[in-house]
Amino acid sequence: MPSYTPPLKDQQFLLHDVLKVSEADIDGYSELDRQFTGAVLEEAGKLAAEVLQPLNAVGDRQGCTLENGVVRTPEGFKAAYDQLRDGGWMGLDADPDYGGQGMPYLLSSAVGEMFVSANMAFNMYQGLTHGAYSAIHEHGSDQQKATYLPNMVEGKWSGTMNLTEPHCGTDLGLIRTKAEPQDDGTYRITGQKIWISAGEHDLSENIIHLVLAKAPGGGEGTKGISLFIVPKFLVGDDGSLGDRNAVTCGGLEDKMGIHGNATCVMNYDGATGYLVGELHKGMRAMFTMMNEARIGVGIQGLSQGAVAYQNALAFAQDRLQGRDVTGPKNPDGPADPIIVHPDVRRNLMDQKAFVEGGRAFIYWGAMMIDRARRNGDEEAEAMISLLTPVIKGFLTDKGFQTTVLAQQTLGGSGFTREWGIEQFVRDARITMIYEGTNGIQSLDLVGRKLAANHGKTAMAFFDMVKGYIKENEDRVDLKADFLDPLKEASKALQAAAMYFMQNGVKQPNNALAGAYDFMHLFGHVCLGLMWTRMARAAQDALDAGTGDATFHEAKLATGRYYMARQLPAAAMHLARIQSGAETVMALDAEAF
Amino acid sequence: MPSYTPPLKDQQFLLHDVLKVSEADIDGYSELDRQFTGAVLEEAGKLAAEVLQPLNAVGDRQGCTLENGVVRTPEGFKAAYDQLRDGGWMGLDADPDYGGQGMPYLLSSAVGEMFVSANMAFNMYQGLTHGAYSAIHEHGSDQQKATYLPNMVEGKWSGTMNLTEPHCGTDLGLIRTKAEPQDDGTYRITGQKIWISAGEHDLSENIIHLVLAKAPGGGEGTKGISLFIVPKFLVGDDGSLGDRNAVTCGGLEDKMGIHGNATCVMNYDGATGYLVGELHKGMRAMFTMMNEARIGVGIQGLSQGAVAYQNALAFAQDRLQGRDVTGPKNPDGPADPIIVHPDVRRNLMDQKAFVEGGRAFIYWGAMMIDRARRNGDEEAEAMISLLTPVIKGFLTDKGFQTTVLAQQTLGGSGFTREWGIEQFVRDARITMIYEGTNGIQSLDLVGRKLAANHGKTAMAFFDMVKGYIKENEDRVDLKADFLDPLKEASKALQAAAMYFMQNGVKQPNNALAGAYDFMHLFGHVCLGLMWTRMARAAQDALDAGTGDATFHEAKLATGRYYMARQLPAAAMHLARIQSGAETVMALDAEAF
Repeated sequence: MPSYTPPLKDQQFLLHDVLKVSEADIDGYSELDRQFTGAVLEEAGKLAAEVLQPLNAVGDRQGCTLENGVVRTPEGFKAAYDQLRDGGWMGLDADPDYGGQGMPYLLSSAVGEMFVSANMAFNMYQGLTHGAYSAIHEHGSDQQKATYLPNMVEGKWSGTMNLTEPHCGTDLGLIRTKAEPQDDGTYRITGQKIWISAGEHDLSENIIHLVLAKAPGGGEGTKGISLFIVPKFLVGDDGSLGDRNAVTCGGLEDKMGIHGNATCVMNYDGATGYLVGELHKGMRAMFTMMNEARIGVGIQGLSQGAVAYQNALAFAQDRLQGRDVTGPKNPDGPADPIIVHPDVRRNLMDQKAFVEGGRAFIYWGAMMIDRARRNGDEEAEAMISLLTPVIKGFLTDKGFQTTVLAQQTLGGSGFTREWGIEQFVRDARITMIYEGTNGIQSLDLVGRKLAANHGKTAMAFFDMVKGYIKENEDRVDLKADFLDPLKEASKALQAAAMYFMQNGVKQPNNALAGAYDFMHLFGHVCLGLMWTRMARAAQDALDAGTGDATFHEAKLATGRYYMARQLPAAAMHLARIQSGAETVMALDAEAF
Repeated sequence: MPSYTPPLKDQQFLLHDVLKVSEADIDGYSELDRQFTGAVLEEAGKLAAEVLQPLNAVGDRQGCTLENGVVRTPEGFKAAYDQLRDGGWMGLDADPDYGGQGMPYLLSSAVGEMFVSANMAFNMYQGLTHGAYSAIHEHGSDQQKATYLPNMVEGKWSGTMNLTEPHCGTDLGLIRTKAEPQDDGTYRITGQKIWISAGEHDLSENIIHLVLAKAPGGGEGTKGISLFIVPKFLVGDDGSLGDRNAVTCGGLEDKMGIHGNATCVMNYDGATGYLVGELHKGMRAMFTMMNEARIGVGIQGLSQGAVAYQNALAFAQDRLQGRDVTGPKNPDGPADPIIVHPDVRRNLMDQKAFVEGGRAFIYWGAMMIDRARRNGDEEAEAMISLLTPVIKGFLTDKGFQTTVLAQQTLGGSGFTREWGIEQFVRDARITMIYEGTNGIQSLDLVGRKLAANHGKTAMAFFDMVKGYIKENEDRVDLKADFLDPLKEASKALQAAAMYFMQNGVKQPNNALAGAYDFMHLFGHVCLGLMWTRMARAAQDALDAGTGDATFHEAKLATGRYYMARQLPAAAMHLARIQSGAETVMALDAEAF
């Protein structure tokens, strides 16, 4: 059975040596000193390792069951949920006005990674609640906030996102769920939603569904969509639970993974709904949930890679098989541990370099979110908006690949359920699909975000990378191994953007056909930048003789691996992009 | 639920337009005319689509059960097995002296791909039998052949390979299973074997286990290993079944996929065994099974990609979502089929280009096997020996990736069990692991095959590619799209081999750390060559006005896609290889 060890040392290194958070000019960051973050992360790590992780395989084996409309979560989920709720973990970064702890999003991301590494299916129940909380917090009326948020922040009530219908997911303009206005200002919601994560379960007293539906008078397509609150139990003026609303779970989806989370068919049969924000402007509010969810899914991808890597490493250090070609490393044993073999190393280093680089990317992105939210910084808002599809698409593709690599480290054992690595592969697989498939992320990146603000934000990104390289040009210790390859990869990214500008405006297919490669190229540049920053911090600590030298040497070695072995993908992605749309679109649909 | 359509047109194109099999100077090939292969493949395709495919999901859901030592296969497996047996399909390429049909291996590979696409878990029962048949056929005594082969060829008896033990798989020198010589010339076999596919089941009347064990007097490690026949039921002189031998199934493995195949723990408690071939030379005989199995696993990888692609394509042509950016393609419908979108195309073209290129690679390799076996051609034997790890490693890595891409085409539906694509992902995953992990394949390629015959075979491969390019240098119609990129990729492969020669002899880690990338680089050159050959055949047919022009145009378009979008990986693999072992091996094992 797998285990989970919280990455506390790595977290503290990122927060304090690389990002230097307590010195950052972000509202609320000054209290994030090493001791404080260490205490919070250690406590969260304990919960992850001791409470959530042991339930991960249980949830996978038992799954959820539906009987007479009641969904039961796996054994132990309710007790663990209550423990997290009682500890105040669910409202970690929520607004103190509604009972939240008001912590930076950065800290809640770091905690989130651990909770998700330990038990992804479990953590989705509170993850969905957070998305619904954010939508109401940003777009709801004062009364709605007062009615729903305190209980959601506490975890007493949970939340969901209801977008997909049987005939449409990506193309929400096609939705058929109807909202009919009533005399009392409420709406009657009728329709069917599918793939609703945490749509029905036994963990919370009430479930607050956020539902996209079409009310009369809206335009065609997405213009006619509005967002509604549809509580499972109606809520009285005094906050008490009233009648059951006309919303029921019509079935549970049988899935490849995340069995511990209830993926529901939800039937709305004239349920009472309350409009959130403006009528016919539901897409805007939906994107509040969606953008948050996309970052959350990026964290999921990383986290499954991270826990899979830990377990692959433990296996490679333990399993005796064959001898080091350069001479036995375990001469008294029957064979050497397989970590001595170069190809096993290559595999492990791919995993390690991604996990640590990806974690830095998430923390960096989370700081931008805090800067945008807490300081109202519009440039940070624009930058994280540009990077969101990269965080979602790149980190989930690579996170899944990392679970597959980890499974490979275990050989035949990796394929058995007994060893438990295969669950990470099955659970991670969904991250490439939900909250917008990674194909959709790449289109969002190239079709929307790249050109946003007349391309100013993209230019700001390139300038930032160039600026960082320039700022460090006298660092000969970083030049050949880090700065030069970063520069080359960044040039490839700019060349790709240039190709889109020159060839994609008149013929958009030239841009769209290269979008997926562009997303990956972008991700590599981001991780290249993260590794360069980590290398600088590690080298500085070594030069200053502070901290754990072995740890910092390992950071440098892992970074060198990423730059030498992963960044060469940049040129490949550029070549594919520059080959244009012709070969992609040459076949008639019928000629396939 | 998925469906399966036999790729008859593609098969005939490969056999007759590209490989021109009936004109090849290989013993027995002259009868392989278009009509004959068409009839055989059509019949096999029917069985695959109508008998085996409907049982694929059944096998996955039901799995196998063990009760009181008896393993039951899923519902319908026995009837399907009998139907294949009665049709003579199990001995298709087996020796007519023992009741086989004596067909070329090429034809049985083509049939095999279809059977495996339709139902991988089911087909393993006969696949394992074939490996055991080959080992006895090549290394057994006349009496052993007479005793076991006719019933195995017929499918009345089945076979297994018993290598792995709980503490060793890759490193067979560590095995502990003992063989004690008895006065009557037999051996008492004692030990435990794990992960034995088809180790126990209810499909055949007897199971012939081929077991690696250590007999006294052998050297250390693999030198002391011998191969034994251990039948489930002892066989009398008259061929009748006698007593149950002391071999039992101690448990079934709970796995990620291939649930329809029984993966057994096999306990040998002083079972009667018969030596196959020479004492202490068991590894040689084992490799007869293993090499055959590795090609078979390559076919499995391809076949899962092939069936997954078919179903992804059908979904993409059917699912309506969004509009073509260049104008509606289905103006009367609510949206266009998703195949209009460039990123969905990219995904489908990746799948299609791999499946068709990989199929050509397998047929080409199968022809080499026939040339070696039927004509006794040693150069062909050496060449297929060089290519075997590439066929196994590259086709299973890419085959698995193709199932993942196909799953992605379906979006959320791909993650549900209802649509059935996720089973292909789970089933395909094992192909990267068993019969030697793909890491082991890459070490076999670089550490053994590349240097075999003083590198003559590798040189012969490079010369063949160069020769083909030279032979076609006046084909301006193929130059820019096919011959030039093939030349470039082939140069990268040679540069990688040169790097290993110059840097890997004194420091083998420089070769071993690049082995995996080399295997992929080699695979890309092979598929590049296959696509160039297919393009030439398609272009020739178009020029001559023969055959189906749409089909041939599609071949050219798909080939151009492969060359433009997949071959750029060659340079990336070379860059990684040339970065050497330093970054791979820099960390101490404890510093991870």
